[in-house]
Amino acid sequence: MAKPRLRIIPLGGVGEIGKSMTLYEYRGDMVIVDAGAKFPGEDLRGVDLIIPDVRYVKERLSKLRAILLTHGHEDHIGGIPFLLSELRPIAPIPVYGSELAVAYARTKVEELGNPKLADFQVVKPHTRYRLGHNFEAEFIPVTHSIPGSYAIALKTPLGWVVHTGDYKFDPTPPLGPTTDQERLRAIGREGVLVLLSDAVRVERPGHTPSEAVVSETLNRIIGSARGRVILTTFASNITRLDQAIRAAHRHGRKVAISGRSMEQSTRVAMELGYLRPPDGVIVPLEVATALPRKQSMILTTGSQGEATAALARIAVGDHPHIKLAEGDTVIFSATPIPGNEETVSQTIDQLFRQGVRVIYPEIEPTVHVSGHASRDELKLMLRLVRPRFCVPIHGEYRHLALYRELAGELGYPPERVLIPELGSILSFGREDARREGTVDTGPILVDFVTSQQAILRRRDEIATSGVIIATFVIDRETGGLIAGPEVSAQGLNGQISDEVLEKVTDEFRRFLEKRQKGGFSHGYLVSRTKNVLGRQLYRRAKTRPLILPIISEL
Amino acid sequence: MAKPRLRIIPLGGVGEIGKSMTLYEYRGDMVIVDAGAKFPGEDLRGVDLIIPDVRYVKERLSKLRAILLTHGHEDHIGGIPFLLSELRPIAPIPVYGSELAVAYARTKVEELGNPKLADFQVVKPHTRYRLGHNFEAEFIPVTHSIPGSYAIALKTPLGWVVHTGDYKFDPTPPLGPTTDQERLRAIGREGVLVLLSDAVRVERPGHTPSEAVVSETLNRIIGSARGRVILTTFASNITRLDQAIRAAHRHGRKVAISGRSMEQSTRVAMELGYLRPPDGVIVPLEVATALPRKQSMILTTGSQGEATAALARIAVGDHPHIKLAEGDTVIFSATPIPGNEETVSQTIDQLFRQGVRVIYPEIEPTVHVSGHASRDELKLMLRLVRPRFCVPIHGEYRHLALYRELAGELGYPPERVLIPELGSILSFGREDARREGTVDTGPILVDFVTSQQAILRRRDEIATSGVIIATFVIDRETGGLIAGPEVSAQGLNGQISDEVLEKVTDEFRRFLEKRQKGGFSHGYLVSRTKNVLGRQLYRRAKTRPLILPIISEL
Repeated sequence: MAKPRLRIIPLGGVGEIGKSMTLYEYRGDMVIVDAGAKFPGEDLRGVDLIIPDVRYVKERLSKLRAILLTHGHEDHIGGIPFLLSELRPIAPIPVYGSELAVAYARTKVEELGNPKLADFQVVKPHTRYRLGHNFEAEFIPVTHSIPGSYAIALKTPLGWVVHTGDYKFDPTPPLGPTTDQERLRAIGREGVLVLLSDAVRVERPGHTPSEAVVSETLNRIIGSARGRVILTTFASNITRLDQAIRAAHRHGRKVAISGRSMEQSTRVAMELGYLRPPDGVIVPLEVATALPRKQSMILTTGSQGEATAALARIAVGDHPHIKLAEGDTVIFSATPIPGNEETVSQTIDQLFRQGVRVIYPEIEPTVHVSGHASRDELKLMLRLVRPRFCVPIHGEYRHLALYRELAGELGYPPERVLIPELGSILSFGREDARREGTVDTGPILVDFVTSQQAILRRRDEIATSGVIIATFVIDRETGGLIAGPEVSAQGLNGQISDEVLEKVTDEFRRFLEKRQKGGFSHGYLVSRTKNVLGRQLYRRAKTRPLILPIISEL
Repeated sequence: MAKPRLRIIPLGGVGEIGKSMTLYEYRGDMVIVDAGAKFPGEDLRGVDLIIPDVRYVKERLSKLRAILLTHGHEDHIGGIPFLLSELRPIAPIPVYGSELAVAYARTKVEELGNPKLADFQVVKPHTRYRLGHNFEAEFIPVTHSIPGSYAIALKTPLGWVVHTGDYKFDPTPPLGPTTDQERLRAIGREGVLVLLSDAVRVERPGHTPSEAVVSETLNRIIGSARGRVILTTFASNITRLDQAIRAAHRHGRKVAISGRSMEQSTRVAMELGYLRPPDGVIVPLEVATALPRKQSMILTTGSQGEATAALARIAVGDHPHIKLAEGDTVIFSATPIPGNEETVSQTIDQLFRQGVRVIYPEIEPTVHVSGHASRDELKLMLRLVRPRFCVPIHGEYRHLALYRELAGELGYPPERVLIPELGSILSFGREDARREGTVDTGPILVDFVTSQQAILRRRDEIATSGVIIATFVIDRETGGLIAGPEVSAQGLNGQISDEVLEKVTDEFRRFLEKRQKGGFSHGYLVSRTKNVLGRQLYRRAKTRPLILPIISEL
């Protein structure tokens, strides 16, 4: 009989940035590390989120022992509620993670899924969690841009496997402990079969600067600001928000938080004590906006130029409560995720047009630092863990390919560095590694038909299940309608009558004609198109097809 | 009677990157500096080029004395053939520029316009050209990424105006002279009313590195390359091509050139002696591909990830003559123009998947340097020219706004730095500057209905003149058709019968269904959609409407 082998299957996050998910399988046991979501690119307007396809897991559901979370970022936990709904387990699935990651994941499941399907477990470092017969998991603290980040060491019958999650070696993290090099080295001595390493920053030489340098920069900028300060970063970048709040307090400013996701993430972080703002610093938005401008700071969503976020509305003067004035400073404490460069750039330009000072990484490089390991840190991890095999994860294909080169510099021959594709089955024995084909993990499209209700659609089913295409052309400058709208139903097999389609198109045309001109954006129109058409179609035909708004700007 | 004033109207290139064009007007005389084109962004698929609207010039055509070219880049000369056709002058318009800029402009006009409408004049430095009663122009050598680059000093009755064009202060330019600081200083002493300065690199501190550093990098990379080298850069970056050819020669490689625009630009540059490759180094493509891999280098288009360029086809293994093999090296000696990040990133990933070595600026910063002035150089220009007023041009709005701050550091109060919008009428007296509203400037959409024939369309006329919208949805991974195509005619007032539209749609569907799967790209589909539909519509209805292919990928 063949010796049992360890199978590692990256279901998301390789050859792409986002929706990280990795499956580990040994005989009768499976564990999943992370269950992320990804935001669709410009060319996929109409879809709200993308998550990995977990058919492979579903077909072997009785083997699934747990979902382990490395940390609480969207691209690692955002798929949890949908994953649980897809798997529909009979008994709750244990979900292990730090207090913060678990709290964020639980909030998501409560909002969008079924909380009864998960059994959340807060983990401690230096503790082993048994997962079925064949796995034990230990959570090892690492530094990243959110507290409660862990690498996960899986003890298997073939030796340790170390899954780094997102990490860097920050010698002075403002919140939480440093990366636990001692423990990583000790596990390395015990024998590591495979290291799965974050590879996304492999293009950068040296070390990523410590998060602490941002603190100095924020202090200087906020200290010298004449008017109000508005700072934007990722809602879940709790470490950064903590630094911004402390800098504001030092300079006599009260802080308000604007934007739903940031209000939520900070509330949870404060409840759990990760975020401990000095007493009285955090005030409601209406209090902050009533203060003299030099005495307030507003933390807001919109660092990626998202059309519906608070900052985009502030930038075009369309926010109901926050207005800019000369002397104000807007700080982008984030870099654009690849694909968002244009929308961020447009937001920055709009802010400059309002006559305010805008600080962003191109002109102030230390207003943001990455949470990921640069080359020397990737090498340090390899030296500590000393794995027999390496698998780079979390990166575009080029990052994975460059990681192989980097490992080569430490003496790893190419055959010991496996570059995975989505769904690759990587199979390991004690001494060897091989590929055993791929599983189907083509993306699942998440379509929010209401803010609380999402429909999951498999891409290859859309051609048969049908789609509504709404097309129109607008004038890029005035926002006026140049041509369209055309609304067509494809593959819906008479679920929607021509008469209904005509009525819906007419109503939609009226909406487009009367909507406010100016202050519009592509993303805003996409989201409104979906809402208006979706509501109409449901009212008139009781159906919720996928709606693809395809808008051209002339 | 009011004293006559100088009017400066930026018709393109401000609040955007591309289609640079500036109008100067004093009493009975007008001159235009540059006539650039711009490539449309992702959201304007179906349009081939964008150029400024010159209605204002056309209405005063009898006053136009000349078009002056700062240098031969697309964003400064690409609009020339269309501009001439739009203006339809009775006598040829004098077009002044360096030998190279004039040669490139002439080639364009011969291909796409009417050569009889231009009277090309090659200029010399230290020479004044009289343009009507009120202007004289002097061309001052500057360094940029193409030889034959000039700043233009216009002598007006109110004093000098200096228009920098694109420039940097490169102390060691590999081709051509250094920026003529002596002459700029001398003109500064004579009294400069306005400086119009390139501002696009105002975010960067210090000096832009010399182009010479690229030479060392290319030498090192090409010298250590094991297989064939493929290098991509802008077709018109003659300086860079010269350096690449020399480095190849030094390491015993022959060089072939692939891609129509690069073949053309290098042929012209060699004829004029700007590019002087050592004898026998340049060989036809079929000779290069027959040589041992270590003895050849191919220079190619596609540095921006353009779907139809040679490199994109090489990257997916779809090029008829150039195939990659392990050990080959592909060098990106260029950075993505804003908006092209995604396509460049995809091309790089595809190349890595082919198993070749890929060198690009993120991992080898000196494989490309900018041709534009950084902050200290922008300041040096201000100190040399010492203008009374400044107008930043060539940049997004944020660059223009930051230039005002930079000038402020040298003591210029905000009211002496005028930030223009497209079409702003900036009016100058000897001692004062003011805004006098704006002129309507566009944009004009250029639609290549065949490779030789372009139709110019004014955006605000499209709603009335009509448009064909072709929509379909494809599977991002397999390239298969998921929904559509829908082809609709809007606003065409019966020019195209329903019957014709149906036939055209059917033919187009057949094309989509039978086209090769895989190796497709968004840009390629857009271009094929235009071709197939355009040909059909012309054959069946003798009409050439604007076709907007709106494609969604799931």
